[in-house]
Amino acid sequence: MGLLIKNGVIVTASDTYRADILVEGEKIVMIGAYLPSDDHQVYDAGGKYVLPGGVDVHTHLELPVSGTVSSDDFYTGQVAAAFGGTTTHIDFPIQAKGGSLRQALDTWHAKADGKAAIDYGFHMTITDMNPEVAREIPEIVTEGVTSLKLLMAYKNSVMVDDTTIFRVMRIAAEQGLLVMVHAENGDAIAELVDGAVRSGNLEPRYHALTRPALLEGEATGRAIALSAVTQCPLYIVHMTCRESLQQLRTGRAMGLPVMGETCVQYLLLTQADLERTGHEGAKFVCSPPLRTPEDNHALWDALRDGTLQVVSTDHCPFWFEGGQNGRPAGKELGKENFSLIPNGLPTIEERLKLVWTHGVGKHWITPNRFVALNSTNPAKAFGLYPRKGTIMVGSDADIVIWDAGKSGTISDRTHHMNVDYSAFQGMPFKGSPLTVFLRGRLIVDGYRWLGKAGSGHFLKRSAYAPVL
Amino acid sequence: MGLLIKNGVIVTASDTYRADILVEGEKIVMIGAYLPSDDHQVYDAGGKYVLPGGVDVHTHLELPVSGTVSSDDFYTGQVAAAFGGTTTHIDFPIQAKGGSLRQALDTWHAKADGKAAIDYGFHMTITDMNPEVAREIPEIVTEGVTSLKLLMAYKNSVMVDDTTIFRVMRIAAEQGLLVMVHAENGDAIAELVDGAVRSGNLEPRYHALTRPALLEGEATGRAIALSAVTQCPLYIVHMTCRESLQQLRTGRAMGLPVMGETCVQYLLLTQADLERTGHEGAKFVCSPPLRTPEDNHALWDALRDGTLQVVSTDHCPFWFEGGQNGRPAGKELGKENFSLIPNGLPTIEERLKLVWTHGVGKHWITPNRFVALNSTNPAKAFGLYPRKGTIMVGSDADIVIWDAGKSGTISDRTHHMNVDYSAFQGMPFKGSPLTVFLRGRLIVDGYRWLGKAGSGHFLKRSAYAPVL
Amino acid sequence: MGLLIKNGVIVTASDTYRADILVEGEKIVMIGAYLPSDDHQVYDAGGKYVLPGGVDVHTHLELPVSGTVSSDDFYTGQVAAAFGGTTTHIDFPIQAKGGSLRQALDTWHAKADGKAAIDYGFHMTITDMNPEVAREIPEIVTEGVTSLKLLMAYKNSVMVDDTTIFRVMRIAAEQGLLVMVHAENGDAIAELVDGAVRSGNLEPRYHALTRPALLEGEATGRAIALSAVTQCPLYIVHMTCRESLQQLRTGRAMGLPVMGETCVQYLLLTQADLERTGHEGAKFVCSPPLRTPEDNHALWDALRDGTLQVVSTDHCPFWFEGGQNGRPAGKELGKENFSLIPNGLPTIEERLKLVWTHGVGKHWITPNRFVALNSTNPAKAFGLYPRKGTIMVGSDADIVIWDAGKSGTISDRTHHMNVDYSAFQGMPFKGSPLTVFLRGRLIVDGYRWLGKAGSGHFLKRSAYAPVL
Amino acid sequence: MGLLIKNGVIVTASDTYRADILVEGEKIVMIGAYLPSDDHQVYDAGGKYVLPGGVDVHTHLELPVSGTVSSDDFYTGQVAAAFGGTTTHIDFPIQAKGGSLRQALDTWHAKADGKAAIDYGFHMTITDMNPEVAREIPEIVTEGVTSLKLLMAYKNSVMVDDTTIFRVMRIAAEQGLLVMVHAENGDAIAELVDGAVRSGNLEPRYHALTRPALLEGEATGRAIALSAVTQCPLYIVHMTCRESLQQLRTGRAMGLPVMGETCVQYLLLTQADLERTGHEGAKFVCSPPLRTPEDNHALWDALRDGTLQVVSTDHCPFWFEGGQNGRPAGKELGKENFSLIPNGLPTIEERLKLVWTHGVGKHWITPNRFVALNSTNPAKAFGLYPRKGTIMVGSDADIVIWDAGKSGTISDRTHHMNVDYSAFQGMPFKGSPLTVFLRGRLIVDGYRWLGKAGSGHFLKRSAYAPVL
Repeated sequence: MGLLIKNGVIVTASDTYRADILVEGEKIVMIGAYLPSDDHQVYDAGGKYVLPGGVDVHTHLELPVSGTVSSDDFYTGQVAAAFGGTTTHIDFPIQAKGGSLRQALDTWHAKADGKAAIDYGFHMTITDMNPEVAREIPEIVTEGVTSLKLLMAYKNSVMVDDTTIFRVMRIAAEQGLLVMVHAENGDAIAELVDGAVRSGNLEPRYHALTRPALLEGEATGRAIALSAVTQCPLYIVHMTCRESLQQLRTGRAMGLPVMGETCVQYLLLTQADLERTGHEGAKFVCSPPLRTPEDNHALWDALRDGTLQVVSTDHCPFWFEGGQNGRPAGKELGKENFSLIPNGLPTIEERLKLVWTHGVGKHWITPNRFVALNSTNPAKAFGLYPRKGTIMVGSDADIVIWDAGKSGTISDRTHHMNVDYSAFQGMPFKGSPLTVFLRGRLIVDGYRWLGKAGSGHFLKRSAYAPVL
Repeated sequence: MGLLIKNGVIVTASDTYRADILVEGEKIVMIGAYLPSDDHQVYDAGGKYVLPGGVDVHTHLELPVSGTVSSDDFYTGQVAAAFGGTTTHIDFPIQAKGGSLRQALDTWHAKADGKAAIDYGFHMTITDMNPEVAREIPEIVTEGVTSLKLLMAYKNSVMVDDTTIFRVMRIAAEQGLLVMVHAENGDAIAELVDGAVRSGNLEPRYHALTRPALLEGEATGRAIALSAVTQCPLYIVHMTCRESLQQLRTGRAMGLPVMGETCVQYLLLTQADLERTGHEGAKFVCSPPLRTPEDNHALWDALRDGTLQVVSTDHCPFWFEGGQNGRPAGKELGKENFSLIPNGLPTIEERLKLVWTHGVGKHWITPNRFVALNSTNPAKAFGLYPRKGTIMVGSDADIVIWDAGKSGTISDRTHHMNVDYSAFQGMPFKGSPLTVFLRGRLIVDGYRWLGKAGSGHFLKRSAYAPVL
Repeated sequence: MGLLIKNGVIVTASDTYRADILVEGEKIVMIGAYLPSDDHQVYDAGGKYVLPGGVDVHTHLELPVSGTVSSDDFYTGQVAAAFGGTTTHIDFPIQAKGGSLRQALDTWHAKADGKAAIDYGFHMTITDMNPEVAREIPEIVTEGVTSLKLLMAYKNSVMVDDTTIFRVMRIAAEQGLLVMVHAENGDAIAELVDGAVRSGNLEPRYHALTRPALLEGEATGRAIALSAVTQCPLYIVHMTCRESLQQLRTGRAMGLPVMGETCVQYLLLTQADLERTGHEGAKFVCSPPLRTPEDNHALWDALRDGTLQVVSTDHCPFWFEGGQNGRPAGKELGKENFSLIPNGLPTIEERLKLVWTHGVGKHWITPNRFVALNSTNPAKAFGLYPRKGTIMVGSDADIVIWDAGKSGTISDRTHHMNVDYSAFQGMPFKGSPLTVFLRGRLIVDGYRWLGKAGSGHFLKRSAYAPVL
Repeated sequence: MGLLIKNGVIVTASDTYRADILVEGEKIVMIGAYLPSDDHQVYDAGGKYVLPGGVDVHTHLELPVSGTVSSDDFYTGQVAAAFGGTTTHIDFPIQAKGGSLRQALDTWHAKADGKAAIDYGFHMTITDMNPEVAREIPEIVTEGVTSLKLLMAYKNSVMVDDTTIFRVMRIAAEQGLLVMVHAENGDAIAELVDGAVRSGNLEPRYHALTRPALLEGEATGRAIALSAVTQCPLYIVHMTCRESLQQLRTGRAMGLPVMGETCVQYLLLTQADLERTGHEGAKFVCSPPLRTPEDNHALWDALRDGTLQVVSTDHCPFWFEGGQNGRPAGKELGKENFSLIPNGLPTIEERLKLVWTHGVGKHWITPNRFVALNSTNPAKAFGLYPRKGTIMVGSDADIVIWDAGKSGTISDRTHHMNVDYSAFQGMPFKGSPLTVFLRGRLIVDGYRWLGKAGSGHFLKRSAYAPVL
C-alpha cells in the first residue's frame, strides 16, 4: 500500500507535465499518466502543482552569536521551514577558535538530535586553520560533511585571511569538497564601522553605509581569483549587488568552477528599510546589508541568465524585543549602536512563497527555474542529489502540493518562526504550499502540523558534487 | 500491449536515474522503478543511457542555392539524422523575392511530403518584407510556423536591412513569434569579398578572411539592440566567436529576451581547415566561417555558463565533386574562386556523437546539459515542448538508446548523408546512438534502418514559446 | 612693433605657467619670463589665464534643413563664437543627392566668403557615394578638406548605408582622411518615429523616446567595427550616452584608431528639458537627443579618463518663434508634431564658459584638460595643428584672455547668436573670456566687437592628422 | 650670460615646435622663434629633438634586500640614469619593522648625501603601521615626502594587510598624499612558492608560475576598491598584465582617482626569458614577473589609450655573478632555488631609448605621449611639477638633446650601471640621448660624463598633486 498523488502537474527543473505519482516507503516508485488507485492512499492534487520539497542550503538555527543565540532551534526553525515548503536544509557548525572540527560537528549534532522534524545536513565553518584541522577535513567528509565555509568578514571573530582560504581551497580541491565564501572585505569594514561609531553615526542605516557594495565586489573577485588558482570549486553565499554579480559572471564566462546564491531578502528588500523610524531599521540588519532597487533587479536578472544557481535564506532570526519574558537577547542589543545589533533575518519560512510571487508571478522566471533555484540546484551542488531536489523515480518523496492561486499576506501573527516580527510584514503573496510530504509522510496539511520532532534525518552528503 | 524499455538510465535536462519506461501508442505513459513486463515488447537498455531524441532546429534539406541544391533531400537527410539520434528537425522555407510566404510554405511541404522519415517543422525565412507579407505572418502561425528567420548577410540575395528586421520584430513581438537572425554585416562582407576577388585572392582561406569575427560581433550587437527596442524574442543562429558571445552575454545580463545557438562544426573545426591543400579547403566553407581554437574554447564555455542554449547543425551539404554522375553541382563550383563555393557543411548525422565525445567526454558539460542543449532547449524555444525534447510521461516516445562506451571513427564511408565527404573525416568518437525510436516505433537498430519514407509527421508548433 | 601680452598665466594642454608672450605679425614669436616692453603694444593679463582660442569642429551655420535654414550665418555665428572665446571652427558642406563634392564645397565657400570674422575650415558630408565621388575625394584633400562626415541617421535624407560607410572608409584610410560618423540607427528610428506619430504621440518628449540610447550604442559599435576592418581613423560626433561610451572605450582599449566628441549640451541638459510645458520642449530638440543625468555624469567621466578627446557644440540654431518678422521658419514648425521640429540648438557661444564652470569649477577636469578638449585636441585631430590649438612659439596668435573669476548668467538677452532663445537660459557661469585675439588682432574686448566680416580665413587642413 | 639652445625641435607632452631656448641660471627664461646669440653659450640642436629630462619615479638604489644590497648606489645609479636621459628620480626609503619613518628617511638621505649627481626625491614605504607612524606621516610631508608606498606582496617581509592599507589611505586622503601600491596577493603567492619549493620545482621559470597574473589582477582590484571607499588617490606601480589593466580601466571609467605605471621591462620582455638555459633565467627575476607577448601588447595599448600614465623602471640591479671580487651577493644566491634569487632588474639607463625605439618607432605612441609618460606625468603626479617634467619658461633647465637617428645595441659592455649583465643585451635601439643638461649644466656629452657627485639636489615635493 502506497501513497498515490493524482492529477497534479509535476514541475521539475526542466519539465512540466500532468501525471500521477506513486510513493512506496519513502521513495517515488512510479510516475504515470493514469495510475490505478488500487489500495493506495490517494491524494488528489487536481489543479495544483506538485513540486519537489524546497532545499535551503543556508540556515543558522540556534546559532550562538553576539553574546546571544538565534531564536529558532532545530525544531521551531524546521517546523517553520516545512510550513514554507522546505523539507531539507543545511546548517553551519562553526569551529571554535582553537577547537576541532569534530567538536563543532558534535555540538551541532547535539542541537539537532531528537528535535529535527525535516531532513538536514551540515556544512563546516572553518575559523582557525592549522595542520590538525587540515588532517580533520578528510575525516569529516566520511561523516557526510562535504562543504566548507569561510568568512572574509567579521573581523576578530570568524574571519579568515587569504592564507587560510588558499590552504583550505587546496585541500578542498583534492578532496572534492565545495568551498563556500562569505565575500566582504572584513578589514575595511571594521575600519568603516569603527569610524562610524567614533563619529556618533549609530543608527541602523549606518550598517549599510559601512559595508559598501564595492567591498562585496572586491571580496567576491578575490575569492574567485583564489578559486581559479587552486582550481577549487567555489560557491559565493548571499550575493547582493551588481559589483559582485559582475565578478561572478566574468568568472563563469572564463569557465571557472564558481557558483553563486542569493537570498530572498536581497531580492525584495532594500537599504531604505534600514531607515525606518524608531529602532525598526534593526529588523533589517543582516550582512551583507540590503542594497538598492537596482540591485534587486540585477539579482533577478542573474537568476534568469544563469549567473546565480541558488536561492537560499541565510535564516538567522533574532527577537526584536528580546532579553525579556524568557527570550534571549535580540535586536535591542544595538538600540544605541548599530554595530551591536545581531545580524540576521527570519526568512526560512517565506522563501518559496515570495520567490514564486515575485519571480514566477512577474515572469522573471519559469516554474521550472523556480524548482531549479530552490530545490534541484542546491541539492545537486551540495551532494544531496538524487535523493533530494527533484521529483523522479527513485528520489525521496519530499513533495510539496503547491497552490498557485492561494493568496495571502505575510505576517508575524501567522508565521511559525520563533520570532516577534517578520521582515516581510504585510507583503502580499500569491502561490503557497498547501500540503507537504517528507519521505512520503504528510507533515503539513494546510494550517496543521503533522510532523514530529525526531523524525528528521541527518543527511550524509557526497563529495565531488557537480559545479552547475 | 506496449513497448517497455527496461533497466536504462534515463537522462533529462535536469535528472539522471535508473528506471523503466512504458510506451503505449506513440506516447510515454509510465516510468517506474521496476515495471512488470506483462505482454509488452521489452527492450533491455541495461548499461545504456536513455535519452530523448535529438531536436535539430537548423537544417537545410534540398535547399536551392548558388545555382545548385543541397545534396540531401527530406528522405536522405532525415535518415542520416535518425542514424545520428535526431528524431525531429526544423527546416527553412525561404520566401522568394516578390513571392508570398504561402508559396514558400507550399514548396517546402511538397519537398517533405511522402519522403519524411522523422518528424519536422518549418521556420519561415523572410527576404522581402511588404504589407502583404505582414498580413501573411499571422496566417502562417495558424499553420504551425512560429519562428521567422532573417539574414543580415548574403547581400543581393536573401539579406534584409534593419528596417525589415525592425518591422518583422514588431509583428513577431505581437504574435508571440521568435525571430532568428543570421548575424553578419553583409554590406561590409560584400565589399571585402569583392576586394579579395579583385586582388586575385581566390583560395578558400579568403572565405574566412573576408568574414572577420568583428563583423559577426557587430551584427549580433545590432540584432540584440533591435530586439531590446522592439521587445521581440531573439535567437541568434550559428554563433561562432568571442565577439558575438560577448554581445549575447551582455544582452542576457541586462535581462533581454535573447538566446543563442552554435553548431557542432564551430565547436570542433577551425579556419586552419580552410587552408588544407588542393581544393580540400572548400569542404569547410560555411558562413559564418570557421574560426580559431580560442573561439572553439569560448563556445564550450558559453554552452556551460548558459550564454548559449542550443547546439544545432546548420546542415547544408554539397558534393565535393559534384556536377557529374548525376550529382548536382557542389563545392567544385568555386574551384577557381572561393566566393563561388556553395556555403554549407554536412553535419546532421554527427552532432550528438561529437558533442557527447568532446563535451561530456571532456567534462565541459554534463549528460543533463547535453540533453538540454540538443533536445530539450530547442524543443522548448521553438514551441515543440512538451511533445518533443524530453523523456516524461505524456511526451512522444522519441527515444535514443545511447551507448556511452561505443567508439568509432567518423567517415564518409559509413555515414548516411548523401554527400561524398565528411567534414569530420577520421575524427574519433566515443558515445553513440545504438537504437532509435520515433513515437514508439523502432527506426534505427544499430546499423539497420527500419524507418520508412512518409512516416515522419509535420509538427505544428506553438507561439509564445518561452525564452530560455 | 608687436603685441606683448604680459603677466598672464599661460595654459596649454599640458602646461601652466606665468610668462609674457610676444606676437609679431600673426604669430607668437617669443615667450619669456619677463619680456621688455620696447615699443610693443602691451596688454596686461595680470591675474588672468591666457588660453589658446577655442576650436569648435562641429557647427552648422546657414544650414538648409527641414525646409528652412539655421538662423546664424557665417557672420552672426562667428561673431557669437568669438564672444565665446572660439577663434576657429569647422563647418559641414553637404553633398546634395546626385550632386558633386565640388558643388557642395563651392556652395559653402560662397556662404562664408566676405562674411567670415574668425578662421574656419570645412569637413565634407557625403550623402551619395558613387565612383565619381570616389574620384573627387582626393581632389578635395588638395583643397584642404581632410575629414569626411557620414550619417547613420536621418533616413530618406542624408543617411547612408554600411556599404557607403565601408567604401568611404577604405578611401579615407588610403588618403589619410578622418571619417566622422553620426551614430544612430536611422532605420530603427524612422520606424519608431512613424509609430509614435501614428499613435498620436506628438509632444517634444517623444523625440527622445523614439531615439533610445541603445540605438546610439548600436550604431557606435557598428562604426567602430567598420573602422577596425578598414583600418580607417574614426571620430564619433556628439556622443551622448553610456551605451556609446562603452563601445568607444572598448574600441580604444583594443588599440583601434577611434576617437569621440561630446557637445556642451549633452554634458548639462537632459531629456527632462524636453518635457517643459507649452512648446518649450522644442527648444531642446536635437539629435541624438538629450539623455539622463547619469549620462551627463558618464560623459564627464569619459572626458577625464581619456575616452573622449573633444568637446564641440553641434551649433545649429533655429528660431523658437520663426516664420514671422522676416525670420525663417524655426521650432514652431513642429508645434503639432515633434518630428517636424528642426533639429538643433544654439550653443556656439556658450561652450567655453559652461565647460569651464562645470568642468574646471567642479574639478572634473583641470585647466589643461579644458584646453586639450576645446582647443588642442580638435586642432590636432583635424589637421589644424600646429597653426591652431595651442600657445607656443610659431603658432597663430589666437589668444583668449580668460577671467576665471568673472560670473554671470546665460541669457538670450545678452548672447550674440541670431536666435530668440538660449538652451541654457538662466544658467549661472563663473569663468569667461575677457579679450580675444585672432592672429594677433583684437576682435573682442569685453562687450565690444572689434572684428570685421571678411577678415576670417579659410584654413586648408592637413591629411594624416594623428589619432589621439 | 646664459645657455642658448638653438634650432632644436622642442617636444612637450602636448606640443612640438622648432624654437630656441634661453637658460639663465638653472631655469628656462625664454623660448623664441629666433633668439639672438648675444654673449650666450650656444648649443646647436639643429636636426635634434629637445626633450625635458626623464623623471623616473620608481628606483631602488643601494637597497638592502634578501641579505644583500642592490648593486647601484646613488652615484653609479644616477650616472647611469643621466646617460639614459633621466635627470630626476624618486627612490624608496623603507620603514624598518618597529622603526620610525624618520629613521628610514635619515638612512636614505645618508645614502644620497654627497653622492647624488642628478636630482632626486623620496617616497616612503610603510611596513609597520601604528599610531606613532600615523602621527609621523604629516611630519614627513613637511620634509617633501608626499607619496606613500605599500606592498601587498612579499609576505613576512614588507607586506601589509588591508587594515594597514585602509588606514594609510585614510590619512593620505586627508593630507593630500598619493598612495602607491605593489599589487599582488602575497598570501597566495607565499603558498604557491612554498608548494613549488616543496615539490622540487626550483628553476627560475617557477618564479613566474608561482605569481600568476590573476593574483596581480585580484590585488589591483582590491587596491582600487579600497581607494574608492577611502577616496584616496592611488597609483598602481609596475603593472604587467591584462588582468590588472582591466581593473584599472574600469576604475578610471567610474571616475575613481586611480593611476597606473608600467616599466620598460614589462613592455619588452616575457616569461620566456626566465626559461633561458643555465642560470640565465635568474637575470630576469623581478616581481611581478615578466608576462606574455599578449600582455606586452596590452600594455602598449594602455599607454596609448590613457589607462596608464607613467613608464618607470623599478631599477633594482643585482650582480649576476656576485659574492666575489668585492661584489655583494647577487643572482647566484638563488642558483639552487628560484625563491632565493634577489628580485630586480637593471633598467634605469635604458628606459628612454627603448620606449622611444619600440613606442615612437613603431607608432604606438607619439613623441608627445613619450614625453608625457616619461617626464611630464610622473613629475605632475608626484608633485614635482612645474619645476620638473616639461620644457617651459620657469622650469628647471633639465634638458635632453635627443638624436632620433642614433642607432646602437644595448650591451653590458657599454652601459654605466654597476652590474655585470643587461636584461636587454643585444637589443637594438634607434633614438638616444646625445647631450644632457641638469639645471642648465652639461652633465652628459655623448660618451663623456661631466657631472659630479654631490651636485644632485634633494627635491621637496608638494602634496595635493593632481590625479591624471
